[in-house]
Formats: sequence, C-alpha cells, structure tokens
Amino acid sequence: MFQTRLNEAAQRVEAHLSHVMAPMGDLPVVQAMRYASAGGKRLRAFLVLESARLHHIPEAQAIWPATAIEAIHAYSLVHDDLPCMDDDDLRRGLPTVHVKWDECTAVLAGDALHTLGFECAAHPECHPDPSVRAELTLTLARAAGGQGMVLGQALDIAAETAANPLTLDEITRLQAGKTGALFAWSATAGAVMAMADTAPLKRYAADLGLAFQIADDILDIEGDAAKVGKAVGKDADAGKATFVSLLGLEGAKNRARVLIEDACDALAPYGGDAETLRDAARFVISRDS
Amino acid sequence: MFQTRLNEAAQRVEAHLSHVMAPMGDLPVVQAMRYASAGGKRLRAFLVLESARLHHIPEAQAIWPATAIEAIHAYSLVHDDLPCMDDDDLRRGLPTVHVKWDECTAVLAGDALHTLGFECAAHPECHPDPSVRAELTLTLARAAGGQGMVLGQALDIAAETAANPLTLDEITRLQAGKTGALFAWSATAGAVMAMADTAPLKRYAADLGLAFQIADDILDIEGDAAKVGKAVGKDADAGKATFVSLLGLEGAKNRARVLIEDACDALAPYGGDAETLRDAARFVISRDS
Repeated sequence: MFQTRLNEAAQRVEAHLSHVMAPMGDLPVVQAMRYASAGGKRLRAFLVLESARLHHIPEAQAIWPATAIEAIHAYSLVHDDLPCMDDDDLRRGLPTVHVKWDECTAVLAGDALHTLGFECAAHPECHPDPSVRAELTLTLARAAGGQGMVLGQALDIAAETAANPLTLDEITRLQAGKTGALFAWSATAGAVMAMADTAPLKRYAADLGLAFQIADDILDIEGDAAKVGKAVGKDADAGKATFVSLLGLEGAKNRARVLIEDACDALAPYGGDAETLRDAARFVISRDS
Repeated sequence: MFQTRLNEAAQRVEAHLSHVMAPMGDLPVVQAMRYASAGGKRLRAFLVLESARLHHIPEAQAIWPATAIEAIHAYSLVHDDLPCMDDDDLRRGLPTVHVKWDECTAVLAGDALHTLGFECAAHPECHPDPSVRAELTLTLARAAGGQGMVLGQALDIAAETAANPLTLDEITRLQAGKTGALFAWSATAGAVMAMADTAPLKRYAADLGLAFQIADDILDIEGDAAKVGKAVGKDADAGKATFVSLLGLEGAKNRARVLIEDACDALAPYGGDAETLRDAARFVISRDS
C-alpha cells in the first residue's frame, strides 16, 4: 500500500520533470539532465506531496516544490559522483553521468538541474501567493547552500584530512546539513504553502533525515550492491567514521528505530491523517536500496 | 568619473558579499567561495545598481540582486575554469580555484555560490513586496539555467565537436544565452523592482551583451595576457569560430560600435538620467581587460 503510493508519486514527479524540461531541446547536456533526474525513490518529493495533502494543498501546486527538490537532489548526486568527489561509476544500477557522457557534461547538467530546482520553486503555478513562493525559494536556497547541504559536504571533505575521526556529535551535525536540510524543506513544504505551523514536521524531518543516514551507513555494510545500485563497503574500506563505526551495527539499528519512533510521535497533532508519513518513516529504515 | 562610480559600486558589492558569507565559517570551501567572488569589474552588479537608481529604488534593496548576480557569475567562472571545461589556470591574474585548492573544492564552492545567488535574490531585505522577490528569483533561474547561460555553454560544447564551424547566427544565439541572459537580468532588475516597463533596458542589455562578447573575442586576439588576467589567443589556437574569425578584426570592431550606439539609443526614454549606463556601454568596448 505505502509502496504503491510512493510509486504513484514517483510517476507524477517523473512526468512533471519531463514537462518542465520539454522546452530545453535535446543537446547532450539536456539528455544528461533527463537521465540524471530519472528514477530513484523520490522520497523527498513524496514528503512534499504528503505534507501538502495533510494541509489540503492541491497537488497541481505541490507538484512544483516536489519537482524542485528532486531537481536539487539530482544535481547533488551528479556532482557527488564526479571523479574529483566520490568517483562513483554506478548510480541506481546505471553508469553515472560522467561515465556515460563526460565530466564536462556532468558538471553542466548538474548546474542546470540546480537552477531548474529554483525555477520550479519560484514558478507562478506553485502557489497563487507570491510570498509563499518567495519563502519556498529562500528556504530552499538556505537548505541547499553553504549553511545546509553544501556545508555538510564541505564538513565531510574536511573530515577526510582531519587528524582524528569524527565524533558522534560532529557526524550528526554533518548529516543534518548533508541530508537533513533537504528532508526538512521537503517535509515542511506543505505547511509553508498552507501558512501553518511547521514545528511538528520539522521535528519529524530531523529524526527522519538522521535515521535515513544511519540506514545508509548500515546498507554500506550489509547491503547487496546489486540491490543498492551503487558500490557498497566504500566507507568502511576508507576507514571513515560512520554511525556504524561509532555505535556498532546493533547500536546503529537501535538508534535508527528510536529516531523513527520519535519521528512518528512528532506527527501527533495530525492524528491518523499522517499515517502515510509514519509509513514513510518506517520504510526509510527497512529499505534494501 | 565612470571608472570611479564602477569602482565604488564594486566596493559596495564586495562588502555585501562578505556580509552574506560571514555566517558560513571558515572551511576551505567557504574560503574558496570568498576567493572566487572577490575582484572583477562587477559590471553586472553595476547594471543592477544603475537600473535601480534610474527607478528610484533604494540602494539598500538593490545591493541584494547586485550581490546575487555576482555570486551567480562567480560560480559560472569557477566551473568554467575546471580542467574538464576550459582548463584555465589563471583568472583575474590569480590562480583559479581548482589550482589554488583542488577540483573537489572548486565544484563545491561553485555550487555554494550558485545557491547563494538565489538566496540573495529571494532575501526579504531585497524588496518589501514578495511578488517582486519571486519574480527576480524566477527570472534569475531562467537566465542562469538550461534556457539561458547553461544553454549557451551547452551550445558552445556541442560546437566543439560539430562538423562545421558555427555561423554568425548560431554564435549570436550562443552568446545571447552565455552572457546575454545575465546582462539582461541585471539591466532590467531595477525596472522589475519598480514594476516599470522593462523593454528599453532589455534592448539595451541585448546590444550590450553582444558587444561585450565581441570585445572579449577582440581581446583574445589583441589583448595583453598580463592586463586581461587570463590566457589569451586560446580561441584562435583552437580554431574556434568567433566574431573576429567570422567578421574579421575591423568588421568585429565596427559591429561592436554599432551595437553600443543602438544600446545607447535604447535608453532614450530615460533621457539624461541614463548617461551612466551609456558610459558603461562605451566602457564595455574600450576596456583592456
């Protein structure tokens, strides 16, 4: 049931991404944009759509921020996979953009997806009230930039050359930027669009983002590369501090479970209406890819 | 006189860039952001500030879009200079970001400057009316993205492997995206902020952007690398079609002069108030860097 809803949401976002990229023609960079933004679980878009549904925002509006966040997420993956970054050849079981095309195309396609995210968030059809569009754009920039996602990545790189491995506090701060900021933006988008209180969804997203990252670290140890769709065991091989190296495998699993319980509790003000978001939280730590 | 005004504007933008990056700390990526966004002629910011002044927009507001466009411009230069793109070691007479740090830092610093541009355009202090902020953000995304600057870069790359060199029409279209779109956004920003007619400034910017690119092509032939601050003669060495290769040196100079006359004529509705923008246009084809 949850998986069906997730898949349906993914299909709608996929269709909308095609729609917004239709006027861009068919140059290699645009082909690479389409390739890089296809597939994936679309968890961030799902959070946008579900939080919008909770607040009775029409899906014709919510599809814009849902598409925005997936464009931003796709850009971050394309740049992350570059040889000078994580140097990954495989993503979602397919060759990464710089392998299928070249590095230059990957840099540019990532840049264009990055801009596209802001174009979607600021799009007039996203919301009739321009103050909401301005707010969504401003908060998206803060979540994606040097005080959000890019800060997390910069801390990650700094950690590689640091004398001591990261502590649990430091890794938690790093991940709050790297994955947490976009999760928080996604989960609160519906409340922002309804000009409602964002606090419960913010708490939910903070727990969810951290649990998601712990689950990723566990997949890096226990996962099957064929199912995960990318190389596994890289962090352990590199001797990187992760939630698993700091808490142990069982400790990490317990921490993730507690976080998911907290995430579900945070949704209490929404009662039974938020059951799908609770399902999403449980899915995050049970997934095998 | 014009040079003094340009320098003063540059200093104000410099100060504001420092201000918006102050909370970002001092990680290498942030140091690289500061380095990459320092210096330069600040012509785009100047266009924003002057078009705002023409429309009686307070500079405390106009400084935000002026800073936004310089952040976007700086990001595009950092990524353009990468080994997989133009592979340039020198920019404004200093080592490029990937030379001074490394490629990974250059990709991330560019990404963070890209996001910072949108954060500045959408910033509440930019304009009290959120519809103006939403409009500035939306048009900035369109100017920077796959239908603007990145489209121009994608066409540029496609041209390198094309069977035939570009025609004058094709190169004009390419440059309209690559430099023209950001020039147009900058020059019309003041009119957008005043909710005034953008048509005269749009015409001015289209002519100015093209003349700017022709002047760049001329500098690549006639320029002194020490003054230009980057390698010259690269396009000719690579056998690339440029305005100079297509029109000849004298033909290119004449074309640029005619464009600048047209750009100045387009400002007729503003009368003598637009004299500084006319000076900017004349500067664009007389500069030696």
